[in-house]
Amino acid sequence: MRWAQGFIAVDWGTTNRRAYRVGRDGTVDDEMEDGKGVLSVPSGGFDAAVGEIRARLGDLPLLMAGMVGSNRGWVEAPYVPCPAGLPELAARLQWVEAERTAIVPGVCFAEGDAADVMRGEEVQILGAYGEGLVPADGIVCHPGTHNKWIRLEDGRITAFRTVMTGELFNLLKAHSILADLLALPAGVNDAFEAGVRRALDGGELTAELFSVRARVLLGKTKREDAASFTSGLLIGADLRAGLAFAGETGLVAMGRPELTALFAAAAAVAGRPTREVDGETAFLAGAIHLAELLQ
Amino acid sequence: MRWAQGFIAVDWGTTNRRAYRVGRDGTVDDEMEDGKGVLSVPSGGFDAAVGEIRARLGDLPLLMAGMVGSNRGWVEAPYVPCPAGLPELAARLQWVEAERTAIVPGVCFAEGDAADVMRGEEVQILGAYGEGLVPADGIVCHPGTHNKWIRLEDGRITAFRTVMTGELFNLLKAHSILADLLALPAGVNDAFEAGVRRALDGGELTAELFSVRARVLLGKTKREDAASFTSGLLIGADLRAGLAFAGETGLVAMGRPELTALFAAAAAVAGRPTREVDGETAFLAGAIHLAELLQ
Repeated sequence: MRWAQGFIAVDWGTTNRRAYRVGRDGTVDDEMEDGKGVLSVPSGGFDAAVGEIRARLGDLPLLMAGMVGSNRGWVEAPYVPCPAGLPELAARLQWVEAERTAIVPGVCFAEGDAADVMRGEEVQILGAYGEGLVPADGIVCHPGTHNKWIRLEDGRITAFRTVMTGELFNLLKAHSILADLLALPAGVNDAFEAGVRRALDGGELTAELFSVRARVLLGKTKREDAASFTSGLLIGADLRAGLAFAGETGLVAMGRPELTALFAAAAAVAGRPTREVDGETAFLAGAIHLAELLQ
Repeated sequence: MRWAQGFIAVDWGTTNRRAYRVGRDGTVDDEMEDGKGVLSVPSGGFDAAVGEIRARLGDLPLLMAGMVGSNRGWVEAPYVPCPAGLPELAARLQWVEAERTAIVPGVCFAEGDAADVMRGEEVQILGAYGEGLVPADGIVCHPGTHNKWIRLEDGRITAFRTVMTGELFNLLKAHSILADLLALPAGVNDAFEAGVRRALDGGELTAELFSVRARVLLGKTKREDAASFTSGLLIGADLRAGLAFAGETGLVAMGRPELTALFAAAAAVAGRPTREVDGETAFLAGAIHLAELLQ
């Protein structure tokens, strides 16, 4: 009953957190965001960090998702194995304070030689399904630092695959021999599409990446096109892995709109139409569906 | 005639340099090595930096190879296009001081949509051929920060492919989510071979890399095996690209012995026997063969 009176939903990641106050009518009536990600909270500091959220948004029940439930977070919430739907997540919440403060568990996939984990995306994916934004059966691409390709069957996550695309792009931009080229702006343009096509043609990504520098040195790619071409290569290689996983199933891209747009553009080059779903909307839908299961 | 009286050969890379004094009889009678790589020489400082070498090893003709001839080096030595053998390199030396101070040009490959460049490895590869250490036709793998697969035909470099394997391993170890796992020692063991096999099975490298962390979290890989497994994944993916390039041609691994041993071990997992050639021996052979062409 307590949760029906309103609650706070927190999307708590590695480098920042966002909290929403959900009223009795199921709409957000206040929210906050700051840079207090899991890595910036000192050991033993989560009580205080959560106190700040309640001081700001009200003394309400609180449901958290994301890296706050990892071994670097507040309390570790063991992964729920696939297949995982909203009922499985609700049944395996990690309660920090009975009936009042809970962490949503992540989801793991282990089959044969494959192993994968997620924390946070599951609330978005299953929330979008609960809200009718994605079908019960399909493939969701969730771009980010660690891009995920997720299979939904009958409204449950049954398998998924993570590709380190965002992290690799950031590493290359900050520290690699391509850093000076990647400091220039990247966009969705002819160079981006050429990079996507090149990756879909199947060369080893780590060879294609070196060739960016060679292409510029030899005048085959314009210096100002190198960042877009590289972005296309990385997203194209990700898409290659994702399409191998997805087969002919329809695609949805979910997450931050600027990232889902990149993946949708790359998928279009591969002739695969992709519907985009806003990740924040999906997260709130997931939190509200989970809270309903706690009534 | 001047070069037959003895000369200095310098392998001058990005982060260090090594210089050898070659006597009249063609053997090395003195050498020096320091950390004065191209990136640490200030603008306008190469005259002095070369002066140090002559002060230490003698006032002799001097032949340099490597990044000293790049656009970040002393004087840019334009790439020689494939096919490139020792005569083509000798004919296109970049003379800084007539008959006395020269930079060996790098080699470039541009065909269709492919583009690649090398600087420094060409002296080793062609020197090894000149010395009879590699056959006139074959594939040479040259591991390093930027690993190269090079096709030799009739004693000339006709095509090659660079893979960013070493640089990627360093980036992951220094800055990525795998940094804590990669801080542990890596070796050639069962975990390394499992990583090689996993890569040869064909999954996208950037997905396999994330799965290392998931495998440890889910207890599928022991924490102390993660660095060796990751090393196997990276070298296995490199080998996958190299074997696609090499076809059924016999393999030679050339370079620093600790790296050629890794590649030979990975190639053995793929059932491909690989002969190892020491890169320093090959470099000196190349420098001496080039000097002979200057008589």
